[in-house]
Amino acid sequence: MKVMVLGGDGYLGWPTAMHLASRGYDVTVLDNYLRRRTCIETCSEPLLDTPNLHDRAKIFNEISGHKINVEIVDCSNFHEFSNAFQKHMPDAVIHYAEQPSAPYSMINFASADLTFKNNLGATFNVIWAVKEFNPNCHIVKLGTMGEYGTPDIDIEEGWLDVEHNGRKQKFLYPRQAGSLYHTTKVLDTDLLWFYVRTYGIRVTDLMQGPVYGLHTAESSLDQRLLPYFNYDDIFGTVVNRFLIQAIAGEPLTVYGKGGQTRGYLNINDTLQCVELAINNPAESGDLRIFNQFTEQFTVNELAAKISNVGKQLGLNVKIKTVENPRKELEEHYYNAKHSGLLELGLEPNYLTDELITSMFNVLLPYRDKIDISKILPRVKWS
Amino acid sequence: MKVMVLGGDGYLGWPTAMHLASRGYDVTVLDNYLRRRTCIETCSEPLLDTPNLHDRAKIFNEISGHKINVEIVDCSNFHEFSNAFQKHMPDAVIHYAEQPSAPYSMINFASADLTFKNNLGATFNVIWAVKEFNPNCHIVKLGTMGEYGTPDIDIEEGWLDVEHNGRKQKFLYPRQAGSLYHTTKVLDTDLLWFYVRTYGIRVTDLMQGPVYGLHTAESSLDQRLLPYFNYDDIFGTVVNRFLIQAIAGEPLTVYGKGGQTRGYLNINDTLQCVELAINNPAESGDLRIFNQFTEQFTVNELAAKISNVGKQLGLNVKIKTVENPRKELEEHYYNAKHSGLLELGLEPNYLTDELITSMFNVLLPYRDKIDISKILPRVKWS
Repeated sequence: MKVMVLGGDGYLGWPTAMHLASRGYDVTVLDNYLRRRTCIETCSEPLLDTPNLHDRAKIFNEISGHKINVEIVDCSNFHEFSNAFQKHMPDAVIHYAEQPSAPYSMINFASADLTFKNNLGATFNVIWAVKEFNPNCHIVKLGTMGEYGTPDIDIEEGWLDVEHNGRKQKFLYPRQAGSLYHTTKVLDTDLLWFYVRTYGIRVTDLMQGPVYGLHTAESSLDQRLLPYFNYDDIFGTVVNRFLIQAIAGEPLTVYGKGGQTRGYLNINDTLQCVELAINNPAESGDLRIFNQFTEQFTVNELAAKISNVGKQLGLNVKIKTVENPRKELEEHYYNAKHSGLLELGLEPNYLTDELITSMFNVLLPYRDKIDISKILPRVKWS
Repeated sequence: MKVMVLGGDGYLGWPTAMHLASRGYDVTVLDNYLRRRTCIETCSEPLLDTPNLHDRAKIFNEISGHKINVEIVDCSNFHEFSNAFQKHMPDAVIHYAEQPSAPYSMINFASADLTFKNNLGATFNVIWAVKEFNPNCHIVKLGTMGEYGTPDIDIEEGWLDVEHNGRKQKFLYPRQAGSLYHTTKVLDTDLLWFYVRTYGIRVTDLMQGPVYGLHTAESSLDQRLLPYFNYDDIFGTVVNRFLIQAIAGEPLTVYGKGGQTRGYLNINDTLQCVELAINNPAESGDLRIFNQFTEQFTVNELAAKISNVGKQLGLNVKIKTVENPRKELEEHYYNAKHSGLLELGLEPNYLTDELITSMFNVLLPYRDKIDISKILPRVKWS
């Protein structure tokens, strides 16, 4: 099967490409290095040196014997993207090609404009390239659990059956996100749903929670194959920030009350999920939506978990509260369904102490490279 | 009050500008003539000659003594738009600056891409100009009843109270539109709702049904002040197409079964509604949504109404069915609430035989200019 991974330079894109190439898929990665540019601009470089895509593909090929095709392409430019699409004519497109940081999308007009145009533009172009050149191609789109926000009712898997004044209708589950980045994914879903029902294309939309982890079967082969690792306030997720604060001897900074609950998953489960999705494609005319996470945690629970393991490793770990830079509920109801991928065969890897220990062990040698000034919130929502 | 009318060259923009200028508002219109360009490109020129904006403002000034400021500006270009915004610093922005044709948005990639980028880009820029330069400015955004589509439950006024598994949540009413054009307005609403709740700007989103009519108090002053009148399949609404077919002695062409039900309103009611909206602004942090129409009709009912009046005027009117070029339900439940604007003081003008007669009387002298080949569907959804 020919698979195209858009955003193949990113935290998930590169491990996905290696995972699929190792399993015999014909893999092409597309990227325009937008993540690297925005990291440099915001002084948010990753902790680990990350070779460019061509170099990583070469290293991976030398070690594993597997080939990954690399195209340096801006997916938000239809001319560039459709040329690459027609050259490789994939059976499945895994669409990660979006500016992925909520704080980045909230800095100013320029960062918001870039996020908005890049994310919506890439999705629009993917839809049209598929529709025009290979309507049977399966689009696997990375959405986010953040699209749903934190409603006071159960979060269903993509759709909601509504009964109103004695009549019934099934709708896309109503979405209300907490940042412009998350809102671009809401708009992506609206757009995909329109084109799916109008033109009969096939789409799987993955509502993914925050992902943690560095080691996959392939990234473990060589330090240079590890995924892009940010620990700053803009591109680093909460798990990464806590790990690095623990290593640096700084207190883990919880935003506000710390009762913010989200669904999380291991990077190896992301790889399983996208492979399950492309091997069990959505039907023509079907927008199939999965909630992609395996466990729910509050921020306080995450801080406690990482603190405990850090202390076992002899680190001096403290936890403190800082003012929440975001506009979000800090204590709320949260009950999100996530059975679809389990039914397809997902075998979860949980956030165990062993997993946290293994991340500490990768990161501890880089203690001297940590710049603690990049971790405290630099972007405020208002 | 300083009011900026975006898309001031259009069917609604120009009558709105004259209406408000006549009532003492300080009015500036912005337009980049996108509608005129797309009409020429698709061979869909209006029936009546329509002078350019500067000339119309001059004619209106000579006849009425009222002044309308004209800025030829692309609202989807932030540099151009924000310069004009800061120059005039309005108290209210009436945002009509969108590509308004469903069929145009469904022609091909280029027309879809233009619609998508223009409509979302203009809305994004309006939000940011207000947020950055005058957060108190009231945005009155033209949405469409088409955002809701035709669900099998009652259509509420913007919001829906959902009860699910014993818990309750109020959501934006779920939207699922029938064309890319309508879908861009769904995305507009999502985007406005995010920025309203995050930054506390004030927005009124008008879910408007199809509008009919030519005469307003101001457009009646001079033939050259009449609004832009399309009768083709791409930019002409169903009422306009039926009127022109009746005049040309061609059968009124009903798409499919003709049971498609929508809420319609008189152009004079649009003018009332936007004036009521700007005089009763939304609160800061409020996305206020009104369903803006006064009567529901099926396509078959409209055809019968126009046929009856045409026959009274001595025209030879027939009705026939043609294959529906759109993807839509042709018979469906439709019950849409619309009380908010009535509560604000709207006094409806209905689609009476007298109103239809007055439209016939304006259009009959142009019988020889009608090009019947432009009326049958040239754009198919699939």
